[in-house]
Amino acid sequence: MNIDMIEAAAQRGTGHVRRTPLLSSPFLDKIAGRRVLIKAECLQHTGSFKYRGGWSALSAMEPAQRKRGVIAYSSGNHAQGVALAAAQHETSAVIVMPLDAPAVKIANTRALGAEVVLYDRATQDRNALGQDLAQDRGLTLIKPFDEPQVIAGQGTCGLEIAEQAAELGVTRAQVLVCCGGGGLTSGVALALAHRAPDMRVHPVEPEGFDDVARSLAAGQIVANSGPEKGLCDAILTRQPGDITFPILHRHCGAGLVVTEDDACRAMVHAFERLRIVAEPGGAVALAAALFHGASLEAETVIVTVSGGNVDAVAFANILSETRP
Amino acid sequence: MNIDMIEAAAQRGTGHVRRTPLLSSPFLDKIAGRRVLIKAECLQHTGSFKYRGGWSALSAMEPAQRKRGVIAYSSGNHAQGVALAAAQHETSAVIVMPLDAPAVKIANTRALGAEVVLYDRATQDRNALGQDLAQDRGLTLIKPFDEPQVIAGQGTCGLEIAEQAAELGVTRAQVLVCCGGGGLTSGVALALAHRAPDMRVHPVEPEGFDDVARSLAAGQIVANSGPEKGLCDAILTRQPGDITFPILHRHCGAGLVVTEDDACRAMVHAFERLRIVAEPGGAVALAAALFHGASLEAETVIVTVSGGNVDAVAFANILSETRP
Repeated sequence: MNIDMIEAAAQRGTGHVRRTPLLSSPFLDKIAGRRVLIKAECLQHTGSFKYRGGWSALSAMEPAQRKRGVIAYSSGNHAQGVALAAAQHETSAVIVMPLDAPAVKIANTRALGAEVVLYDRATQDRNALGQDLAQDRGLTLIKPFDEPQVIAGQGTCGLEIAEQAAELGVTRAQVLVCCGGGGLTSGVALALAHRAPDMRVHPVEPEGFDDVARSLAAGQIVANSGPEKGLCDAILTRQPGDITFPILHRHCGAGLVVTEDDACRAMVHAFERLRIVAEPGGAVALAAALFHGASLEAETVIVTVSGGNVDAVAFANILSETRP
Repeated sequence: MNIDMIEAAAQRGTGHVRRTPLLSSPFLDKIAGRRVLIKAECLQHTGSFKYRGGWSALSAMEPAQRKRGVIAYSSGNHAQGVALAAAQHETSAVIVMPLDAPAVKIANTRALGAEVVLYDRATQDRNALGQDLAQDRGLTLIKPFDEPQVIAGQGTCGLEIAEQAAELGVTRAQVLVCCGGGGLTSGVALALAHRAPDMRVHPVEPEGFDDVARSLAAGQIVANSGPEKGLCDAILTRQPGDITFPILHRHCGAGLVVTEDDACRAMVHAFERLRIVAEPGGAVALAAALFHGASLEAETVIVTVSGGNVDAVAFANILSETRP
């Protein structure tokens, strides 16, 4: 992994990947006690940054290999990103998704033209299922995060952060990134290390799923031992990847941890102050900036809102029941 | 009013007015049966295009006059736009708002530093109240739409539409604009007449408040006779303005009319497919594109989502109760 791969991914994505806006609100600045800039990746195609990685991976493949099709495992956002990128490259995508993924994510993945194969988390082995399908059909696996071209694609978000912050005169900041397996976080950290060296990235995770924070503290990969399900479905991975962790370890500051309630409160603030839709897992970095900023020193904090794929009923309930 | 005033407003707004993104979704294209591009003005500062006009008006004033302060009448979006622009110009703003304006709009206007004066629509004359205040304190009135520098500011949205559409290779389109008194619609129409002459603007209004559509059909200003209240509070004006109407008459195609239910359905689609928050009055143009496109011929339709200031509870109810 290096910065040239991220630059090349940005080049391949021109005209396809959306340059998402860097938003702000005086109301959020007031709550956080400092300037907060919000990279609204929920406005990316398919509603999350995952389209960057999907497009990057598909566009980097050899045409003959790409033509045979791709396969991905995902609870939903990587699924949609790969599905749309595959459709745009006129090839087929098989997506292996858990039965209990949010309905909107399953429906959207299908509607984007992918073949969805559902599995039961409790009784079926996703990897075995996927490997069988891949072998039978000659499909190429696009991993959700531990995959160089996927990390390169997510890193293009970091290039944009560096540019857009510089346009506002900001070159020094702490950058909080919603973190699952570390694909976005490592890509952004690598991009910023080269393009905005006075910015420091911190991963943000939900309570109970803080494998990255603990891995960074331990200096080695540590896994979550608890349940696999929670409100922040997009970022509940067991442990950071073999490729992502060394990048995180080299470039990131300490991880931050927020509660599910913090994430819901941040979703309401994003609704009221930015008029964007954040999903729970996409709101943890904003939650950290708003409610857990005591450990931060920078005058400016930049956060990703990494996705906005949330069922209407779930969103309505959070709006009605959460005191921001 | 001329294009030079719009260009000058754009110049004055550089670094202040946000260049909002032009969004799209394959799902919305499918519903509409054509390509739909969405100018997301709900992502503008203060959550609506009104900040453009507020900034334009404040920045065009003589410093000595500006220092004495400004006054505006508004149900909420113009209020917030003027309040923020006044605060940024370090002057005071008095905003005269109806008692029954959405709570979020009143609260935000106050929080942006303005002095809010509430009046009762049923028993008080807003104009008399405002004129007294203006005279007593030497304040300058910034009208919500029938004011050249406000129209010039709203027109900067049209300049961006022309540029952003051209980047996508689109120079020919029908452009649907959410329309109250016609400030945004006339500004956009004037900008596009000069910068994208193959685009045609159509105002969109809610049923029962179609004064602009009827005025265009009659060739002269016609007023609404019905009630002054409805779900689309941002765009319920009695009639087009003396300055806006001649521009609309010269440059716009026929007006389109949608129901409040159409607006709610469009809000749900904007939530699900674009991950943006639209308020009812800000969703009528998208509603027309999605559900009333039979009268349109262009392969591409561009719509404004002109605002996103809606109470959380109201939005939750619409999400829960509307079948998109």
